[in-house]
Amino acid sequence: MAHTAERGRETDTMADKTGMTIGIVGLGLIGGSLARHLAANGYRVIAWNHRPHPYEQARRDGIVCVDSLEELAGHPGARPDLIVLCNPLKAMPQMLSRLALVIDRTTTTLTDVGSVKALVRQQVVAAGLGNCYVGAHPMTGTERSGFEAADPSLFDHALWAITVDESTDYRRFLVVARMITEGCANRCIVIDDGTHDRAAALISHMPHVVATALINELTDNPDRNIAAALAAGSWRDMTRVALTDPQRTRAMVDEDAENVETLLRHMADRLVAVADALHDEDNRQIGEFFAHGQPFRDYKAACVRANTQAETPVTTDMPLNLATWRDQLLESARRSEQVTGWRSDAVAVVERRPAVVSAALVRA
Amino acid sequence: MAHTAERGRETDTMADKTGMTIGIVGLGLIGGSLARHLAANGYRVIAWNHRPHPYEQARRDGIVCVDSLEELAGHPGARPDLIVLCNPLKAMPQMLSRLALVIDRTTTTLTDVGSVKALVRQQVVAAGLGNCYVGAHPMTGTERSGFEAADPSLFDHALWAITVDESTDYRRFLVVARMITEGCANRCIVIDDGTHDRAAALISHMPHVVATALINELTDNPDRNIAAALAAGSWRDMTRVALTDPQRTRAMVDEDAENVETLLRHMADRLVAVADALHDEDNRQIGEFFAHGQPFRDYKAACVRANTQAETPVTTDMPLNLATWRDQLLESARRSEQVTGWRSDAVAVVERRPAVVSAALVRA
Repeated sequence: MAHTAERGRETDTMADKTGMTIGIVGLGLIGGSLARHLAANGYRVIAWNHRPHPYEQARRDGIVCVDSLEELAGHPGARPDLIVLCNPLKAMPQMLSRLALVIDRTTTTLTDVGSVKALVRQQVVAAGLGNCYVGAHPMTGTERSGFEAADPSLFDHALWAITVDESTDYRRFLVVARMITEGCANRCIVIDDGTHDRAAALISHMPHVVATALINELTDNPDRNIAAALAAGSWRDMTRVALTDPQRTRAMVDEDAENVETLLRHMADRLVAVADALHDEDNRQIGEFFAHGQPFRDYKAACVRANTQAETPVTTDMPLNLATWRDQLLESARRSEQVTGWRSDAVAVVERRPAVVSAALVRA
Repeated sequence: MAHTAERGRETDTMADKTGMTIGIVGLGLIGGSLARHLAANGYRVIAWNHRPHPYEQARRDGIVCVDSLEELAGHPGARPDLIVLCNPLKAMPQMLSRLALVIDRTTTTLTDVGSVKALVRQQVVAAGLGNCYVGAHPMTGTERSGFEAADPSLFDHALWAITVDESTDYRRFLVVARMITEGCANRCIVIDDGTHDRAAALISHMPHVVATALINELTDNPDRNIAAALAAGSWRDMTRVALTDPQRTRAMVDEDAENVETLLRHMADRLVAVADALHDEDNRQIGEFFAHGQPFRDYKAACVRANTQAETPVTTDMPLNLATWRDQLLESARRSEQVTGWRSDAVAVVERRPAVVSAALVRA
């Protein structure tokens, strides 16, 4: 990696776009939205879905649809620079073992969009594809599913997590990062699998269990229909995710079981501590409980201020060193910075929003 | 109470409206919205607020503003038929002891809009005002507060809980019920304090603690800002109520402490059971956990169907018996019926929505 000053961003951006072929495995909500978004943005997109029913519409959107995963990986005259696995997590081992037989390991980079990263990397390594792989997770989605629900605008302003480990090749990382920042005009942060999976367990997987426990509690209540009739906004919001397909939720929780287990025990301890304090009328403990999350309230208020006052983000160039780029980018994420683009192959453009970064959530 | 057939609803409705004076104590979000709604609807509304800053606007809205609680209760020539206590719960004992000195117990009925009913009734009885009192709780509100945020539309299509006990006088109940159904064009269900407080703990007070525990868990996480950056819709919805004034939440929880304590222990047990099952990879238990709340999912789907298909509600007349009216109305609420009006002083009009009532939440 050369640290030459390759300015002139427009030029190399367009060159990347027009020269790049991206294979999409699975035309569901995320895969379909991503394929349509990239095709509309000038990329050559080849897609395979386990059933061909979305192909007619996909072809109208400029997506090349093929008959098999094998054809996608080795498409004559156009081996993809990047294959994005958008299939369900449970199909991952089968997809990887089939890909391992046909993928060109020197030219094709492999990524995915799964909500759990350590497990996917294990499966990728087990299939002998670790050297091609960079993990990714776009923080977007809806409660709907399927290509019918696919919508390129799903990726408007989205943040992606890119997950790397000590063996991740920088050039492969850059292929994925540029698809995100240039192909999708999205932002990304770079973290390790463990940080991703713990964070996802905290902000999504564990809360899905909590929401389900709430509707179970109502279901067991003798006056459950009176309670449901009296329920207003707080109940509606807190149980919304419990209404999604419970099989999908269950799969998500199973795949991140260790982190979810830890967080559920933490939550149970917190709830029992409040119950004990209410029982003893220990006002001090209850007061501390309600004050404890103030840094998050301050952070949310800062986000609102940054958005409503249209605070200008601070953009800086971050030259990356081949030996330390992973740590540089992980530290940048920990400072609440986000990668928005590339000055050159060796210089990331990172953005920070002062009001948000100065909020108390960022530790010294 | 006579069971004579007093049809001709329009006539007695208008007579009630034009002849009725309602006193509102406290012009905050709920009291202000209610006062404006009733004044706009032709009622004579007298209001007192502990600080006079909302009076200028309130007078423009046709509300008579007075200088003291004593003047409100004994307003010369116009003692209110009904006083609605819309003050904060913590001010309740003081309001009640002052009212006890001046209220005309024969002509004035007393009600309130607090989110906890057993405690308020205790305070009302302690002030010697039990015979005048009927409890009420409109299931509406926003995260804002104060008369500036008051909005008559807050009461559009709202459901109220009216709480009664064995000593509640039917005529006083009717004054409150008619303010709701005729003054506000709202619906109501009639329940006892305990049923109300347990239901409110389940659908509101306990979930507020759970939401707060979630933001506390994030606050304690070493990668809390990365988690916050990755957070999307599920986290936002599940923690929204944790962003409201923690002092207000704390007061609400303290006032319904016994019910909240019980439910927090139930929730902790449910979360630990899932954690244990994840630890043991006991698929059967996890499957049961995710299936258990299906009656609530079915109920919500039925509500959506009833709304989107504009299902015609079934309306029936329910003649009430002076000896059994409380049980009749409580049983009606348990069947998921709601009172929408009065055919006469002795005949309630109740509404049921077949798709919702047939959903599995209503027990045999």
